[in-house]
Amino acid sequence: MNINVIAIGSELLEGVTVNSNAAYISFELIKAGLKTSSHCTIPDDPLIIQKTTEASFTKNHVTIVTGGLGPTCDDITLDAIKDVLPIEDGITLKNHLGSASGLFFERNKKLLFFLPGVPQEMMAMFQEFVLPEIVKSSVCPKIMSHWMHFSLLAEKDLDPYLRRYQARFSHLDFGIYPFPGKISIRISGLIDSQKDIESIFDELKKDFKKNFYQSASGSLEEAIHHLFIKKQLTLSTAESCTGGAIAARLTSLAGASQYFSTAQVTYSNEMKMRFLGVLPQTLKTYGAVSKNTVLEMVDGLLERSSTDYGVALSGIAGPSGGGFEKPVGTVWIAIKGKSVAPLVWKMQITGNRQMVIDYSVNAALGKLYHLVLQ
Amino acid sequence: MNINVIAIGSELLEGVTVNSNAAYISFELIKAGLKTSSHCTIPDDPLIIQKTTEASFTKNHVTIVTGGLGPTCDDITLDAIKDVLPIEDGITLKNHLGSASGLFFERNKKLLFFLPGVPQEMMAMFQEFVLPEIVKSSVCPKIMSHWMHFSLLAEKDLDPYLRRYQARFSHLDFGIYPFPGKISIRISGLIDSQKDIESIFDELKKDFKKNFYQSASGSLEEAIHHLFIKKQLTLSTAESCTGGAIAARLTSLAGASQYFSTAQVTYSNEMKMRFLGVLPQTLKTYGAVSKNTVLEMVDGLLERSSTDYGVALSGIAGPSGGGFEKPVGTVWIAIKGKSVAPLVWKMQITGNRQMVIDYSVNAALGKLYHLVLQ
Repeated sequence: MNINVIAIGSELLEGVTVNSNAAYISFELIKAGLKTSSHCTIPDDPLIIQKTTEASFTKNHVTIVTGGLGPTCDDITLDAIKDVLPIEDGITLKNHLGSASGLFFERNKKLLFFLPGVPQEMMAMFQEFVLPEIVKSSVCPKIMSHWMHFSLLAEKDLDPYLRRYQARFSHLDFGIYPFPGKISIRISGLIDSQKDIESIFDELKKDFKKNFYQSASGSLEEAIHHLFIKKQLTLSTAESCTGGAIAARLTSLAGASQYFSTAQVTYSNEMKMRFLGVLPQTLKTYGAVSKNTVLEMVDGLLERSSTDYGVALSGIAGPSGGGFEKPVGTVWIAIKGKSVAPLVWKMQITGNRQMVIDYSVNAALGKLYHLVLQ
Repeated sequence: MNINVIAIGSELLEGVTVNSNAAYISFELIKAGLKTSSHCTIPDDPLIIQKTTEASFTKNHVTIVTGGLGPTCDDITLDAIKDVLPIEDGITLKNHLGSASGLFFERNKKLLFFLPGVPQEMMAMFQEFVLPEIVKSSVCPKIMSHWMHFSLLAEKDLDPYLRRYQARFSHLDFGIYPFPGKISIRISGLIDSQKDIESIFDELKKDFKKNFYQSASGSLEEAIHHLFIKKQLTLSTAESCTGGAIAARLTSLAGASQYFSTAQVTYSNEMKMRFLGVLPQTLKTYGAVSKNTVLEMVDGLLERSSTDYGVALSGIAGPSGGGFEKPVGTVWIAIKGKSVAPLVWKMQITGNRQMVIDYSVNAALGKLYHLVLQ
């Protein structure tokens, strides 16, 4: 089954916006066992829109077009296609989050969808109308993709395993996707390969049990979210170099108030003293990025927040602020729970500012997960 | 001049990775006055790679292919093309950051580049070899794109203006890009249209002076960052429904410690009382999402942080937690500065959880910008 995703928009061809819509659609399709054949991006040009859309509708089983459906002057998709597709033959797809409706055409068992370019509106419409319609019409053997996620592992840790599995199970397809502080692996195969995939997963879970975490989306915040709610525990954070990124990620999930209590983003030394009771002497002797400081941060946090667990971080995200003893990427983390020994460690992270922040967030959440899971 | 960017990689068609390489290349090209005609993404399939590359080389002035050049088993680009392009006719492009070299072909004044998929390696090679080669061979008039950004405006506010300009300046090309709580417009034209574009910008700046903000990236955090550093002011936030998102966005920029001091993410009522001194009676009488609560939050914040400005937010991000009087999307914001009257207002935001959070962050930063700019 050929599926083509067409994005319309000069902002994409000018590099101002990254085509995250295509990635979202393909990721949702693969979860449903369907592989995307191609993505393409074309400009807001009526003739190109008309030609590309019509050619794809004829050639592919499914064509999904995003963008150019709004009410403004540069939204020209419908105008562009009306010479080749009678709009009244299409089925209107309702937009609950915005004003631009979607459109759906079917011709010779081939499907063509027009969706708005605004990501949230596109996603809602995709889930409500598009995905069910594609799944219903699909006649191909379905590929199932299974995912596993690990914190604090690198490609080199998992690559030898995957190469061995690749040799043993030639009917399976393997993928490995590293992110700062975490890594995901994908194994795909036909539905009857479920058992082989499970045996691989069991092996990996055993060999990397301090790194494996359970999460449908692959995010560590989702793993923490479900674990804390299930165990009826509460959490707070004291953040310096991550600047509230842990709290922002945890609270991006609905229902976070069931376990998440407070974040003390203490960016300056002054605030570390005022809001967390870190001693001036500690900051003076050891510096803000030190074992002693993060331990005092987490102690002060737990005292003031009365939560079951606390996470404190202090580091140098860069690009400036690094020195000989503490170069950019130096991050100290302390995790403390009411009835477990505190965990405190230092990391030396390579990469730019955003990578240091992302790595720190994932490292902290990954370690917290396994501390609480015990 | 037609420029086509082809990305090779199943991870892109599985939605695991976003095609940021295409965005990077197009953004660099537009800075050099060159517009990209199309992007496409194809799988790691030798026949598809061969056909797509050859067709694009024939049809377009410039074809840039990224990905599939590495040492691992799924890096098959060179093998795929060797039947249609004698590799020895190509010019090797040196990779200073990795092992995979690039390749460059020229045929009938048409250019074809193969670059690695690893972003850093691709970027270095693009700057060193590809961009100069394209600029050298370009015979087309160069297009310049200019951008303007506004907080708290919607498409409907700017669309009538752009339609008028479109009628008046038919040699210019207009784009309008809405985001939750902010909007960007683009005007493109040949280099000699600079003056017309400036006159439009001056008009828009005057008519929307409470919304226009200066930012190279278009982000409000960048606008706030430069404004606060320039004015030598300090800032803190008290966040409830945004869960630290304002702090995370502000501190994602290097140098934020020059003005950003602390974020008090007080997700529960208990924490609003403990860390910000909100009175139990206020929470009981008016609720956490109320004018009185955000005013007490911002007062408590400024008292404790001693910063020049404070922003406090409390709202219902949803999807649950809404009621008849305060539906999902109700957000109260208070902004207070040392020598200006406090600003406090209520918003009723439409959209899902992430949209409510993003809108709230941009609304707060947009109003803060204009309060401080005065």
